[in-house]
Amino acid sequence: MRHFTHISDLGVEGVSRILDRAVELKSEPRAGLFAGRILAMLFFNPSLRTRVSFETAMLRGGGHAIVLSPGQDSWKLEDRPGVKMDGDRPEHLREAIPVLSRYADALAVRSFAGLVDRDADERDGLLWHVRDLSTVALISMESAREHPCQGLADMLTIREHVGAISKTKLALTWAPHIKPLPLAVPHSFLLSAAACGADLTIAHPPGFDLHPAVLREAEEYTVRSGGMIRFTDNQSTACADADVVYAKSWGPVQLEHAPQLLAQHSDWLVTRALLESGSRPAQLMHCLPVRRNVEVSDDALDSPLSLVIEEAHNRYFVQAAILDWLLNGDDDD
Amino acid sequence: MRHFTHISDLGVEGVSRILDRAVELKSEPRAGLFAGRILAMLFFNPSLRTRVSFETAMLRGGGHAIVLSPGQDSWKLEDRPGVKMDGDRPEHLREAIPVLSRYADALAVRSFAGLVDRDADERDGLLWHVRDLSTVALISMESAREHPCQGLADMLTIREHVGAISKTKLALTWAPHIKPLPLAVPHSFLLSAAACGADLTIAHPPGFDLHPAVLREAEEYTVRSGGMIRFTDNQSTACADADVVYAKSWGPVQLEHAPQLLAQHSDWLVTRALLESGSRPAQLMHCLPVRRNVEVSDDALDSPLSLVIEEAHNRYFVQAAILDWLLNGDDDD
Amino acid sequence: MRHFTHISDLGVEGVSRILDRAVELKSEPRAGLFAGRILAMLFFNPSLRTRVSFETAMLRGGGHAIVLSPGQDSWKLEDRPGVKMDGDRPEHLREAIPVLSRYADALAVRSFAGLVDRDADERDGLLWHVRDLSTVALISMESAREHPCQGLADMLTIREHVGAISKTKLALTWAPHIKPLPLAVPHSFLLSAAACGADLTIAHPPGFDLHPAVLREAEEYTVRSGGMIRFTDNQSTACADADVVYAKSWGPVQLEHAPQLLAQHSDWLVTRALLESGSRPAQLMHCLPVRRNVEVSDDALDSPLSLVIEEAHNRYFVQAAILDWLLNGDDDD
Repeated sequence: MRHFTHISDLGVEGVSRILDRAVELKSEPRAGLFAGRILAMLFFNPSLRTRVSFETAMLRGGGHAIVLSPGQDSWKLEDRPGVKMDGDRPEHLREAIPVLSRYADALAVRSFAGLVDRDADERDGLLWHVRDLSTVALISMESAREHPCQGLADMLTIREHVGAISKTKLALTWAPHIKPLPLAVPHSFLLSAAACGADLTIAHPPGFDLHPAVLREAEEYTVRSGGMIRFTDNQSTACADADVVYAKSWGPVQLEHAPQLLAQHSDWLVTRALLESGSRPAQLMHCLPVRRNVEVSDDALDSPLSLVIEEAHNRYFVQAAILDWLLNGDDDD
Repeated sequence: MRHFTHISDLGVEGVSRILDRAVELKSEPRAGLFAGRILAMLFFNPSLRTRVSFETAMLRGGGHAIVLSPGQDSWKLEDRPGVKMDGDRPEHLREAIPVLSRYADALAVRSFAGLVDRDADERDGLLWHVRDLSTVALISMESAREHPCQGLADMLTIREHVGAISKTKLALTWAPHIKPLPLAVPHSFLLSAAACGADLTIAHPPGFDLHPAVLREAEEYTVRSGGMIRFTDNQSTACADADVVYAKSWGPVQLEHAPQLLAQHSDWLVTRALLESGSRPAQLMHCLPVRRNVEVSDDALDSPLSLVIEEAHNRYFVQAAILDWLLNGDDDD
Repeated sequence: MRHFTHISDLGVEGVSRILDRAVELKSEPRAGLFAGRILAMLFFNPSLRTRVSFETAMLRGGGHAIVLSPGQDSWKLEDRPGVKMDGDRPEHLREAIPVLSRYADALAVRSFAGLVDRDADERDGLLWHVRDLSTVALISMESAREHPCQGLADMLTIREHVGAISKTKLALTWAPHIKPLPLAVPHSFLLSAAACGADLTIAHPPGFDLHPAVLREAEEYTVRSGGMIRFTDNQSTACADADVVYAKSWGPVQLEHAPQLLAQHSDWLVTRALLESGSRPAQLMHCLPVRRNVEVSDDALDSPLSLVIEEAHNRYFVQAAILDWLLNGDDDD
């Protein structure tokens, strides 16, 4: 049973193979790729791009997607094992996931980080629980630890609009926000870039480190891919030297002090001036949704340097390639 | 105009015919069965299995389902006749149902019991109101009185996994809960089992009787089907003698005393020990969602005796057979 | 790039052409009209008819519709330009609309009037903002100023069930309500009727005038269409002389005094007696949802004079014609 919940499901070669397939599907759409197949999508958190890009990928391939929002249009779901279920969650994952596995050809799940215990978020308990219970292919549409579809769409965008990833200098810069956000997107950018052999600099204020287990995994990928990962707390130098500036906010290590820590770094706003501060202008990426003039300024987002719309569009092609790999198999794996 | 809102729409012969058709469709799926047809599903209450099993049945047959949740993604609906509509419900069933009948090929409605007046719940006023107004086939996805699709899926599961229903000893046992639940599922299990000629024992604490009008209807079916219905307030003896234990909670006759009455019987929890207390182990059924360790224990649900996932899966096949009967007709009726 | 957000996108000839096409599609359904096309529908306000009629039009034409409700199943959307997005709306239209334009073949948006500033509502800022940002065909499913699909469905209904619009006397009468409603529906009825050359009388209490800019636009259409528009504050005489009475509530010019102004005119309830007060009975129309016995009495809605269900049904055919014009083009335009 194939699943795609973490970049480790693909590894260095797998990431490259999915990106190649996405490029193929972008240039030559295949109408019947998912004919008669049904993807059940389970959203514990809201979504725009993820939902619509998956749904259109299934529909344009001749298949269908069913969108479920537990607690809104279906029952709230319990996930703790062994609990006496006398609270507000009338159904357990142990029933819901096997049942959905009987109706659908694949499942996709979105569930954000708890943002209370970083180590628990890194362990991704809910997603692994679902994965253990699913008897059909499972896709993560973002979990506490990673947003792997986003990471791959980011790499496809760089490959298409900037150039070979291994020859591109990437800067992932922390950005300000009104509240602490999950680490899933920066983790996935890091892991995907490492798997693609990128030269990546990660800039963040002190105290906003990514999770060490993810850093270790990324280092392992660079051994095979030839990539490089550097860290700095100097946003200016990181961006001045970059071909691509990837802006993203995330929460601090000390989540209990998040409000004060976030308030100290509102000057990390990513602006057009920052993009143009080096010897050549850097292109702007962001996973969206973006809080304008909090994370990234209007002048950067509305400039020709912005790739954010192309990046969102590429979610569609990458996910079509992933669905193809999961539902149709291939000869290489 | 055919409808399927109550077991009485099928009667003893009709129940058997639908089950036969479900078995056929399970062994030989028919891709174009609902080609170009649209089912509009109206949920006054949330759903997981019912929604997804109907939606996938339509999709895999080449048709489509549209899911509406009045008060959430569409207008709250008034159902009282003659009322001056100056409250929070801007649209009346008298418009909504005829209009939906114009757009869709069939309607499906879910509306739970009010749980204030048992006789009013038994009369199923809202559902009959919708049925009167619909100009296309109407399906009940559970109403105050019955959940007829569930009852049929239960019988299919017994037929497949236990044996000929007429030679099987069934125990429907009341189970504890944190609040009074509707009678629709036990009513439908009773009516479907009676129509199939089952030997059924219903065990519940004193004061938790099913509705007399439904009992009378079930007795009528047994005359034609050769079935048998017994009642007891002794869960142990009922289950010890059974091939199948069907666990389900429902509210007491005196709904105003529900909290106290429910609290007295938490020892009716269905456990693996109960399933294995007789000369042969009984298989476990439940319509789901199930509150683990309140209604049924983990050790029962996680044991090989549990049929609950198969039972949910069979919702799909039974509903495909019902949709086939409603939308495509047949020669027997 | 064609859009359909206002009657002015069609003009006098265009309205006639869409109605002709709707008649064609009603008599000869075309199964593959939207094969493989996807319409993304964005609801800032709830809907029943609009959603289901668009969705079924796409599905029956072989296409698909994706329904999004920002703030419910996707992110709340900011629309103000240049704002620092530190509030409760994490995504801006400037990203959401271009992204959806990449995934879908057409967009449809519903957004009601603010009902604070009539001039701002008439300017329809949000809708024009979306229109500017969309890179695919945009359809209004009702905005602050107009509900143009409704206006066209109204004209189709008159043409089919009453007779040639240019030879029909129409009365648009204000009706009572529990709260001030937007002007979009009366505006669209006025503009559509004017484009079709109708003889239209608009009856409303003093202080409930439609917006002057819309009246001017309607007058311009009558020059080409040969239509006539009259105003009165006498409901009885307007309706006694009409072939069709179109009942609809809307808010007063002085929105800050809406509660008192509305309370003064509850006797504008449209009744069967009013419909039958002239030399020949008038037929009843209403866009739905209708508050029974507040806006229109039961005896009128339940009488054979009512066209409200036919009118709702015609939403489907008009919208199929509009989608055909937008997605498939034609030779005349």
